[in-house]
Amino acid sequence: MSDTAAIEAKLKADQPRHVDILKRFVAIPSVSTDPAYRQGVADAAAFVAGRLREAGMGEVAIHPTDGHPVVTASWRGAPGAPTVLVYGHYDVQPPDPAEAWRSPPFAAEIRDGRLYARGASDDKGPMLIPIAVAEAFMQADGRLPVNMVFLFEGEEEVSSAHLEPFVAAHRDLLKADFTLSADGAQWRADLPSVTVASRGICALEVTVRGPGKDLHSGRHGGAVANPIQVLARLMAGLHDDAGAVAVRGFYDGLDPVSEAEVAAIAAIPFDEAAYLKEVGAPEGAGEAGYTLLQRNWIRPTLEFNGVHGGYTGAGKKTVIPKEASAKITCRLVPGQDPARIVDLLARHLEAAAPPGVRVSVKRETGGAPAYAIPADHPGLALSEDVLEGVLGRRPVRVRMGATIPIGDIFKRVLGIDTVFFSFATVDEDYHAPNEFFRLSSYQAGMIAWARYLARLGERRG
Amino acid sequence: MSDTAAIEAKLKADQPRHVDILKRFVAIPSVSTDPAYRQGVADAAAFVAGRLREAGMGEVAIHPTDGHPVVTASWRGAPGAPTVLVYGHYDVQPPDPAEAWRSPPFAAEIRDGRLYARGASDDKGPMLIPIAVAEAFMQADGRLPVNMVFLFEGEEEVSSAHLEPFVAAHRDLLKADFTLSADGAQWRADLPSVTVASRGICALEVTVRGPGKDLHSGRHGGAVANPIQVLARLMAGLHDDAGAVAVRGFYDGLDPVSEAEVAAIAAIPFDEAAYLKEVGAPEGAGEAGYTLLQRNWIRPTLEFNGVHGGYTGAGKKTVIPKEASAKITCRLVPGQDPARIVDLLARHLEAAAPPGVRVSVKRETGGAPAYAIPADHPGLALSEDVLEGVLGRRPVRVRMGATIPIGDIFKRVLGIDTVFFSFATVDEDYHAPNEFFRLSSYQAGMIAWARYLARLGERRG
Repeated sequence: MSDTAAIEAKLKADQPRHVDILKRFVAIPSVSTDPAYRQGVADAAAFVAGRLREAGMGEVAIHPTDGHPVVTASWRGAPGAPTVLVYGHYDVQPPDPAEAWRSPPFAAEIRDGRLYARGASDDKGPMLIPIAVAEAFMQADGRLPVNMVFLFEGEEEVSSAHLEPFVAAHRDLLKADFTLSADGAQWRADLPSVTVASRGICALEVTVRGPGKDLHSGRHGGAVANPIQVLARLMAGLHDDAGAVAVRGFYDGLDPVSEAEVAAIAAIPFDEAAYLKEVGAPEGAGEAGYTLLQRNWIRPTLEFNGVHGGYTGAGKKTVIPKEASAKITCRLVPGQDPARIVDLLARHLEAAAPPGVRVSVKRETGGAPAYAIPADHPGLALSEDVLEGVLGRRPVRVRMGATIPIGDIFKRVLGIDTVFFSFATVDEDYHAPNEFFRLSSYQAGMIAWARYLARLGERRG
Repeated sequence: MSDTAAIEAKLKADQPRHVDILKRFVAIPSVSTDPAYRQGVADAAAFVAGRLREAGMGEVAIHPTDGHPVVTASWRGAPGAPTVLVYGHYDVQPPDPAEAWRSPPFAAEIRDGRLYARGASDDKGPMLIPIAVAEAFMQADGRLPVNMVFLFEGEEEVSSAHLEPFVAAHRDLLKADFTLSADGAQWRADLPSVTVASRGICALEVTVRGPGKDLHSGRHGGAVANPIQVLARLMAGLHDDAGAVAVRGFYDGLDPVSEAEVAAIAAIPFDEAAYLKEVGAPEGAGEAGYTLLQRNWIRPTLEFNGVHGGYTGAGKKTVIPKEASAKITCRLVPGQDPARIVDLLARHLEAAAPPGVRVSVKRETGGAPAYAIPADHPGLALSEDVLEGVLGRRPVRVRMGATIPIGDIFKRVLGIDTVFFSFATVDEDYHAPNEFFRLSSYQAGMIAWARYLARLGERRG
């Protein structure tokens, strides 16, 4: 085993500088879903490229795509050693609802050892870790223990919409033995874990249009269809009374889950009451007949992410609005094709339109199927060994209800698997107000990445 | 019959001045439902008081209430002549959605003989008419043909929430033979009509709260209840498949509608296709078993005026929101008490709450029951005679799907009925973007009010 003591000491000593870098990074509002933030996304890409250059990586490039740019860099000076493709993303979720933030979302504030800002945990803090570690190796040794390729995208929060064609067009640049992902938060702050599977995603937006303009709800109420009422009925019809998705074909062709997998999930220490308390929910809910972890990890879901129609300001406005709409995403499990599911839902909704309204469905592109790493992947075992050493406890293997589309993309296009090696944790309120990243995780992540790369470097071909 | 030719000529000659007064009036943003416009409401009250003073009315007063002020004035110099209580309101609906206006909502713009602005038709244009007519009589004759009391409120758009206690506390000031309302738009632009009944209203807002904060819909989807999903099911459950309200007791105790009334409605010339084309609805919709006019005039409804939850900006945000809410109003018919209906709905919604969420209902105050004027009221017959003379066609008697709470309030508290004598028409997009008032109606209304008052003055007791 390489002695990484010097590297680790250097990384610890440099923490103030790395915190400062993260502060500057999160100050860039790189919201990928909203065109209003286009410049922020471009600025963040430039920031990442600058950090890779500072770290001494070669071939640093910002690649335009049909969406937001991809930033790559590489160092291939260790012939015979393995090559890892490091993945992360520099885009972030929208800051809404802005008024719920204790401190501004795009200005870092440290409270109780946590750095609060949009993107701090997902994924700006975690993705800076491998860059910092590579920089430390270069500064200390003038070389890295393994060959490394870096790929940071700006569209993870919009389902990595343009990543697949980019990867397909840059197979040589991205050639590696496996992916080591800085994204893919750890399951819990109190239990070391490695993530071995993620659900897929697909998205659509349904709009119900009734009258040609907003109408007075007294003058016209009873005469014409109310788009909100129709939308509510359409939405309500998407689940049955037992919480299952009530769209024909939704569950068709699911890959069977083995008894061993079910038993493994059941064996994971999980305090349901503590979880519900943490998220502030009075009770669990969802598809009947499954445990909470099963519903969250190995069952597909259909979630309403937003609904809007009519007057939503203070007081009341007696209006029949001309339209109402809802944003929907599904989380998918192995066997479900995103495009097929979107199509099923769209046809179901369009067919359910009653007289008096027009129903239209916007099929969002960029869905992703579910992904799982083979249980015997050596990069996975190494991550478990390193985490045990750094965190003092053997990690459990967990699944992820969320989606990281790259697992599927790298497998299909490059033929390589993805090991999730992130130091975010799921309680850090990413995708919500007051997102934060634990500074202790920032440092522990650097130690762990240094050890991982060093131990991987011992495995020469 | 009095010769009002001189008064009419004066009113016609003064039209440019009256249009200018209306322009200044609509420039005051007197949105009663939104506290942000509080100053605008106060400014509008002051404007009305100023106009009443200019018109030569006495005892002009701005009365504070627990909500927005009431403006009154009177002239009682015709002993033995009837006394009319003139009603109107100076508050307006919110301008939302602002982006749908062709010209700014609070700056009048005249296009094709129509004055566009929020409140132009409801009710600022119509309520200026009786003031202009009284002014013309005072300037020409130094007196009015009848005794007049003016009451202009600032809370009509919020169900006249504080009007009843005001009226109860000012019975002497408001003593009159009947109310002549400048509010209560005519049914159609192409068919003279008098309104003989209006539906009541009650309002509530239902909020579904799930997790304590917005959650990532992948990380938590399937584990906890989604408030939007629960809200949609609650909303969908409020109507049955035939479009009737599915809340036990909602239809209890309705006053029977006579066969004669049903026949009268059926006899009214009404082109359903033309109506639907005008409002831009592909088809009619609503409670099965009733005609469109029956559904709109003599059947109660439950309408969703607004719904909101989660992310509604551009693109998508994969969130399970912590809450979602909907604004609801019901239009009521004779026999339905607003407070009882709100209570029924609130208890129904609260009882329907599934595990995993909390459902709360905000019971809005200030509902109003339905109202109808006796068919043989002499003030009603006079309005028909005058309209026939001014518009060249005998008006039909129609009902109104909307609510003017004063009908019920004046009847119960003062014991007097209300004749609706408004010159707005229902197609003028009040409660919607691009509200307008026909300048031809502004002038015709002044002629009609002058003739009405003159003929009423001939009826000395």
